Amino acid sequence: MIDGLLERVRRQKPLIHHITNQVTINDCANITLCTGGLPVMTHALGEVEEMVASSDALVINIGTPTPDQIDAMVAAGKKANELKIPVVLDPVGLGATALRTDVISRIVDSVEVAVIKGNAGEISILAGYGGSVKGVESVGRYENIEQPSCDAARKYGCTVVVTGAADIITDGKRLLRICNGDAMMGRVVGTGCMSASVLACFAAVEGDRALSSAAAMACFGIAGELAAKREDVKGPGTFKPALMDEMYNLSEDVVKRYARIEEVALI
Amino acid sequence: MIDGLLERVRRQKPLIHHITNQVTINDCANITLCTGGLPVMTHALGEVEEMVASSDALVINIGTPTPDQIDAMVAAGKKANELKIPVVLDPVGLGATALRTDVISRIVDSVEVAVIKGNAGEISILAGYGGSVKGVESVGRYENIEQPSCDAARKYGCTVVVTGAADIITDGKRLLRICNGDAMMGRVVGTGCMSASVLACFAAVEGDRALSSAAAMACFGIAGELAAKREDVKGPGTFKPALMDEMYNLSEDVVKRYARIEEVALI
Amino acid sequence: MIDGLLERVRRQKPLIHHITNQVTINDCANITLCTGGLPVMTHALGEVEEMVASSDALVINIGTPTPDQIDAMVAAGKKANELKIPVVLDPVGLGATALRTDVISRIVDSVEVAVIKGNAGEISILAGYGGSVKGVESVGRYENIEQPSCDAARKYGCTVVVTGAADIITDGKRLLRICNGDAMMGRVVGTGCMSASVLACFAAVEGDRALSSAAAMACFGIAGELAAKREDVKGPGTFKPALMDEMYNLSEDVVKRYARIEEVALI
Repeated sequence: MIDGLLERVRRQKPLIHHITNQVTINDCANITLCTGGLPVMTHALGEVEEMVASSDALVINIGTPTPDQIDAMVAAGKKANELKIPVVLDPVGLGATALRTDVISRIVDSVEVAVIKGNAGEISILAGYGGSVKGVESVGRYENIEQPSCDAARKYGCTVVVTGAADIITDGKRLLRICNGDAMMGRVVGTGCMSASVLACFAAVEGDRALSSAAAMACFGIAGELAAKREDVKGPGTFKPALMDEMYNLSEDVVKRYARIEEVALI
Repeated sequence: MIDGLLERVRRQKPLIHHITNQVTINDCANITLCTGGLPVMTHALGEVEEMVASSDALVINIGTPTPDQIDAMVAAGKKANELKIPVVLDPVGLGATALRTDVISRIVDSVEVAVIKGNAGEISILAGYGGSVKGVESVGRYENIEQPSCDAARKYGCTVVVTGAADIITDGKRLLRICNGDAMMGRVVGTGCMSASVLACFAAVEGDRALSSAAAMACFGIAGELAAKREDVKGPGTFKPALMDEMYNLSEDVVKRYARIEEVALI
Repeated sequence: MIDGLLERVRRQKPLIHHITNQVTINDCANITLCTGGLPVMTHALGEVEEMVASSDALVINIGTPTPDQIDAMVAAGKKANELKIPVVLDPVGLGATALRTDVISRIVDSVEVAVIKGNAGEISILAGYGGSVKGVESVGRYENIEQPSCDAARKYGCTVVVTGAADIITDGKRLLRICNGDAMMGRVVGTGCMSASVLACFAAVEGDRALSSAAAMACFGIAGELAAKREDVKGPGTFKPALMDEMYNLSEDVVKRYARIEEVALI
């Protein structure tokens, strides 16, 4: 199903423009490089439109939102839309503060996004189901996150990716479940942000965004599994560099062997 | 003396709101997670009060101060005071420039801090004894840092933590000396900043801040000792991830065995 | 030729003030420490002149340029000139957007730089030969980068360092080629930025900037070679901490044995 997509990323080396938070900006740049893309990170209002114009995908992450940066997100997003460059949105901490609700409203009102990636709390809130986010963590249990995901996908005309023990991906027509990954990924700050970078690398090279997202989440999850198994990994500190290594070393063969993608009945 | 505090952090998973510098923001988030807390980092004036309201402690670090960020520190600090949420202040580079003196004056004039952590130069300057800070490093020797520490603790009605070969902790009534840690911690940028995050995790779960600070510094120091002894650590680069690992893997038993906390006669 | 320079850095511990991008700011601070300098990173307009006044070199890196930061770069650069403190300029992504061209013009028009370091695309553009930069990566091949390098060195009265498979260093009078380094350095975000920090450490202790730059690039390259050979390095993730380790562990003897510096005929 996702055969050849990783190779396509590596052959095309898509330039991924990020407008992202200060916390994980370095990790996002490095995982982009390890996936096979080229990262560029700038939120200067004076150049984001020009920068996105030479990019192959745009990641918008609201982790540490400041007024100037939000303006840059909207400007870059509109330019990306104009040029048919896919936009991946990471609504970090949506629900934690009113500001984040406003920022996301402003973005989705003016920018057409290709992929929205969030945790269960963020996506549930985005879909209008309510939810609870403490800081940037999803709180509580979401037994049926499939329904809000499909609703959000249809509402925004995009692909929705919900990260969790299993990842849910839906474009409103199909629903995929990716069962790759390791619990250690939740012990490192920024694996959520990094997954948006990986999603953007694949969205840049494949127009079917449910498919590109499945490939991205499977590859990233497999890299996490391989890293967690390494003998030199002794905790979250050594896990992070190992995750980068494994993403860089990932081959189509390994992806084919370990990808666990299930098609789930439509809702 | 500090029995059970680490377990309490891990059970309560306190949300630690950081308003901090761009240099070590990722390290602070990761060490918070490894300690057992949940990190959130934002300095957007439009949301810091709301964010701190759902937090269990606030870290203010002036490492890379910008006007907007300073306003956010004061606003968040006041809200934290109103809600009795402990504030940990890291006066990075105090004494290096007039701006930093002004920023710290502004913060301590309007915010009641629970814990102030600094190096000997910063604390000596804070207490009015003068001192020398080059960049963000303490310069010179401070033979009797206990006196300025006690003075600062009494003046600001808080607990003062002075990091160094041995850490000094005082609330103006008691004085503790923590003899854990390893010289390698000084070879990595950000271990000072990280210690403020660890202090906040413990301050969030224990109201006696001399005690919570002793637990924090002992745990962090022990993690440093364990990391420095690892065979896979070959220098500062591999030491940092090992430090994260060891903080994550730390158990009450290990803390009990290795903690070196001395009560020193009052001044 | 470069004997004793590394030891001089370690003895003098120069304070290196960075005004740099958000992506690699932590890496730049850590490599400075591993080289033997002390890092300080601030771009607050209210303090950069005072901070640079107590520094031994200034690094200006335009990776994530914002209006306030650019003002701070110019103010700090002018103060550095006044006090004869060497300025190292990293024109990241020059050529990618009009903003970056403007920023670099503004800096070189008002600040005398001691060392300019860039990739082949950036230096070619700087010298007026044109070139192609996609995001922050040099695109295309530059068969004869020596000529633009010499032109730029003469035009700006500085030493120019062009990073690549072999690094080119010229002050317009001499031309050196450094053949140290490893391809893995290109698989990690920020090794270019880090090399500017290393260049600044050496420029702070040696007035002959072709020489100081040769020492810097040879040392950093050797550290990269040693890191790449380590058995615990399994990809870019584990390579980065190993690079830090090896820079920290580097000795004059190892530098003497492995440095590959060639003097090339003048153009």
